[in-house]
Amino acid sequence: MATTSKIPDQSVSESSIGKYLIRRLQDYGITDLFGIPGDYVLSFYSLLEESPIRVIGCTREDCAGYAADAYARVHGMGAVCVTYCVGGFSVANSIAGAFAEKSPVVMITGSPGLTERINNPLLHHKVRDFRTQMEVFEKLCVAGTELSEAAIAFREIDRVLATASRYKRPVYIDIPRDMVDVVPENPHMYQRENVVSDPQPLAEAVDEASELISRSRRPIVIAGVEMHRFALQDKLLELVEGAQIPFVTTILGKSVVRETHPLYVGLYEGAMGREEVTRFVEDSDCLILLGTFMTDLNLGIFTASLDTGKCIYATSETLRIHHHHYHDVLLGEFVGKLAARRLSPAQRDVPFVTGANSEEFQPQGDAPITTTRLISLLNQQLDENVVVIADIGDALFSATDLVMRGRAEFISPAYYTSMGFAVPAALGVHVADQDKRAVVIVGDGAFQMTGMELSTIVRHGYAPIVFVLDNQGYGTERILHTGKWKYNEIHPWNYYKLPDVLRGGMGYEVRTEQQLHDATQKALVDTTGFSLIHVHIPRDDRSVTLDRLAEKLSRRV
Amino acid sequence: MATTSKIPDQSVSESSIGKYLIRRLQDYGITDLFGIPGDYVLSFYSLLEESPIRVIGCTREDCAGYAADAYARVHGMGAVCVTYCVGGFSVANSIAGAFAEKSPVVMITGSPGLTERINNPLLHHKVRDFRTQMEVFEKLCVAGTELSEAAIAFREIDRVLATASRYKRPVYIDIPRDMVDVVPENPHMYQRENVVSDPQPLAEAVDEASELISRSRRPIVIAGVEMHRFALQDKLLELVEGAQIPFVTTILGKSVVRETHPLYVGLYEGAMGREEVTRFVEDSDCLILLGTFMTDLNLGIFTASLDTGKCIYATSETLRIHHHHYHDVLLGEFVGKLAARRLSPAQRDVPFVTGANSEEFQPQGDAPITTTRLISLLNQQLDENVVVIADIGDALFSATDLVMRGRAEFISPAYYTSMGFAVPAALGVHVADQDKRAVVIVGDGAFQMTGMELSTIVRHGYAPIVFVLDNQGYGTERILHTGKWKYNEIHPWNYYKLPDVLRGGMGYEVRTEQQLHDATQKALVDTTGFSLIHVHIPRDDRSVTLDRLAEKLSRRV
Repeated sequence: MATTSKIPDQSVSESSIGKYLIRRLQDYGITDLFGIPGDYVLSFYSLLEESPIRVIGCTREDCAGYAADAYARVHGMGAVCVTYCVGGFSVANSIAGAFAEKSPVVMITGSPGLTERINNPLLHHKVRDFRTQMEVFEKLCVAGTELSEAAIAFREIDRVLATASRYKRPVYIDIPRDMVDVVPENPHMYQRENVVSDPQPLAEAVDEASELISRSRRPIVIAGVEMHRFALQDKLLELVEGAQIPFVTTILGKSVVRETHPLYVGLYEGAMGREEVTRFVEDSDCLILLGTFMTDLNLGIFTASLDTGKCIYATSETLRIHHHHYHDVLLGEFVGKLAARRLSPAQRDVPFVTGANSEEFQPQGDAPITTTRLISLLNQQLDENVVVIADIGDALFSATDLVMRGRAEFISPAYYTSMGFAVPAALGVHVADQDKRAVVIVGDGAFQMTGMELSTIVRHGYAPIVFVLDNQGYGTERILHTGKWKYNEIHPWNYYKLPDVLRGGMGYEVRTEQQLHDATQKALVDTTGFSLIHVHIPRDDRSVTLDRLAEKLSRRV
Repeated sequence: MATTSKIPDQSVSESSIGKYLIRRLQDYGITDLFGIPGDYVLSFYSLLEESPIRVIGCTREDCAGYAADAYARVHGMGAVCVTYCVGGFSVANSIAGAFAEKSPVVMITGSPGLTERINNPLLHHKVRDFRTQMEVFEKLCVAGTELSEAAIAFREIDRVLATASRYKRPVYIDIPRDMVDVVPENPHMYQRENVVSDPQPLAEAVDEASELISRSRRPIVIAGVEMHRFALQDKLLELVEGAQIPFVTTILGKSVVRETHPLYVGLYEGAMGREEVTRFVEDSDCLILLGTFMTDLNLGIFTASLDTGKCIYATSETLRIHHHHYHDVLLGEFVGKLAARRLSPAQRDVPFVTGANSEEFQPQGDAPITTTRLISLLNQQLDENVVVIADIGDALFSATDLVMRGRAEFISPAYYTSMGFAVPAALGVHVADQDKRAVVIVGDGAFQMTGMELSTIVRHGYAPIVFVLDNQGYGTERILHTGKWKYNEIHPWNYYKLPDVLRGGMGYEVRTEQQLHDATQKALVDTTGFSLIHVHIPRDDRSVTLDRLAEKLSRRV
């Protein structure tokens, strides 16, 4: 179903491979790139520094990868550039996360020059053979290439970047260092892929879905993260508003459209979520799942009870209506054509459940802080210029109760659930959109993994607010697997003293609601640098969502 | 050439798979293990906590991997235990480094239970499919297994651990969480591998080598890192002392035997090293390379000039005399039998070049500190209870001039050259040998990657001395690729203030030789916790070795 249009591009005919790659990255909207240099990639780094693309140097490669992932979520596509093997393998987990959660990150790596590889010498950074890194990333990326043949290098760059854009997954581009400045001799026609649906299955699927929705008594839309990845939010709104169909989202898709929308019912998480929402969804006679990943956490550890015989299930990879499948139908075209039909199913009242947690927050003086109360405070204080980034654990589970007032304001690795994503992701968000302010909610264990990336935030003068939830250990694990296990304890840091080390930012240590309230007020008005609020919470503190999750998950541990 | 002896082991016949693995790890001398728990590995962690093996929780998985690598270098074998994918891929670079440098690290990972995998659900942490993590680590390990079949699980554990021990490379063991407590029904005979050489090529090779050495006028031994990995130092000494053959080492093999030995000539690094040593080696008519990796840095970026027609080259993987090869000859047996021959080649005077840098260090008051002077100071101050761990960059190159007074006192990832190894490695060394004290030399860029692992060092009360060389950037890269590139600059930290954050240790900030001298004195006598000495050095400071290296490497960048 892909068609390809060839566009003559005279200007690149005398470009080097390195310069051509930089040009195409810019075509895809990449204005900033994250990474750490190393000798195998220095010549490409120098090209980057002379180009319009800004290089954001990070403290660690995995942080650069997380930042690129968050940048991609906000900006459409991201890129990370590292050196061979020591850099590459250090970014493996970030790329794996981007694959799992469909974030289009271009991983660029330098490698030993082809002329250096003769007789297979033991060059530094090499692991097993010169193919090892490429072989690993073939498992973690949707496409990859080593630019070792000048004659096809431009075409390879086109192919790989188009694949990232089409599938919203990471791709791998390896430039041997002696290929960076090579100018291919053959002329190149820039090929832009234009993918369209097969018209007959598309028409038949839209007809069938329209008929089902029109006849339904209690339709519901379950909007997933792909509505955001494929920029389909407007089409989604056209559909639900046009037909007045209520909608829910999943954790991974939280805030794909604003959560104050009158048709928004809440977050659907099976038995893990609010009972009213679960009942409203599962009572439906026509479930329209759009761009939703059927993951364990998204489905409340598979406690979701969705009858396939009532589902219209459309993602970028599949389109299933009840028990039959349509192939070669694009998600965007399907949603667009459905919206254009102006359907009018039976109307349902939308129970107002989203605001349940948004009562006025009055600090209770010396009361110790709980995560749930922190979320209540934030619900009251945050405006639509804020992007909330929740790390893993109760930082995420409790934050599901935040009511997001804008689009794509909530970012979390809610499927891959890799700890340590949030602080570097805040860097990525600030770089991607200078008008937004990141608010990070992160546990102490996750903060110890990557929190020092605040260094790069100081360097560039960004001003996120970071709430570090200090319960002195891996709190979720304490609850998943009961018993006094020492392995869940971590060494406590004075997180609030980090500004002294990092030479920037402000630190606050808070133990009571009043202190939390006051520190948050100060942080909200201080945009000169980061604010780190070190929040002491009771060891056994937990949100209602975590409690419900633990009940489901602990049976499997 | 492997023979296998079967040993009845009644006691394991009713053991669970998890308990059997713990028992075999102990057989291989593992008394401590590094890692971070996660839900897919919690049940195995709980078994570990109830076992005699001590679990050292780290702040990050890659740090746990580096610590396990260093522990293996000191202790013979190491282990790291992480959760599925988010933990696994975070340790990929550490495992890759252990593979490249032959450090036997057992990587243990939990994974989703087999019963959870039916119909291939999207369980959290999964990337592409349930095999992805295993497929990646097949590239980075010398053997691997997923313990998914009870009937063969014990045999698989035996096979994989034996492979780690035999090849001194990392191995991968994946326990699905519902297999941890499974007790296999079939009886198990513990199989211990006993590998011996093929006697005929062994005898012929020893005869030929003896003849060549005996006839030689100027023999030299080049001792490599495998002398240490395979615990062959005593045999090596027996050979060189018996025949009075002078010897050199390579960077990666630095300090395999004490560098104050009367037959020790120095470090051989081709054109990168001291001219006298290079001349002494390359002038030889019989070069005996024992356990030496022929890597680029080991050979001074291939400036080493070693005539194959004069070489006896023996490693764990190959035995080559001049231009012919012997197969199935074990390194240890070859060295042992050669030593037993009591050869008497012509005697050579050993030029005393090792102590060139060991003149009395007198602090020059307010003089700014250079890396070279720091090494002079350490040469004077360090005793044989110290293990020096050099990170990458001039931390390593300058430290080649240290004269190590004991065995295996110098640890550095001198082939794989992954930044950030040193601080977590110090943790590994302290855990492996409580009688040693680690002295870390680390650049600021590398420290920003993993220096916060000092947290775990505080937690356990260890007292390494950490010199952070602060030149505000990636100094080696500034020299390799000239030009004022911004990408080599990093955000400066007040490293010396970290004790306030980590709630332990002492910090010193030094700018002059006198301050460096005084802080070092204080650190040497203070064994209550870590001492971090934040050493300001000039931006363009460089050791002689780095200068020579840069000249060779910069042509390739």
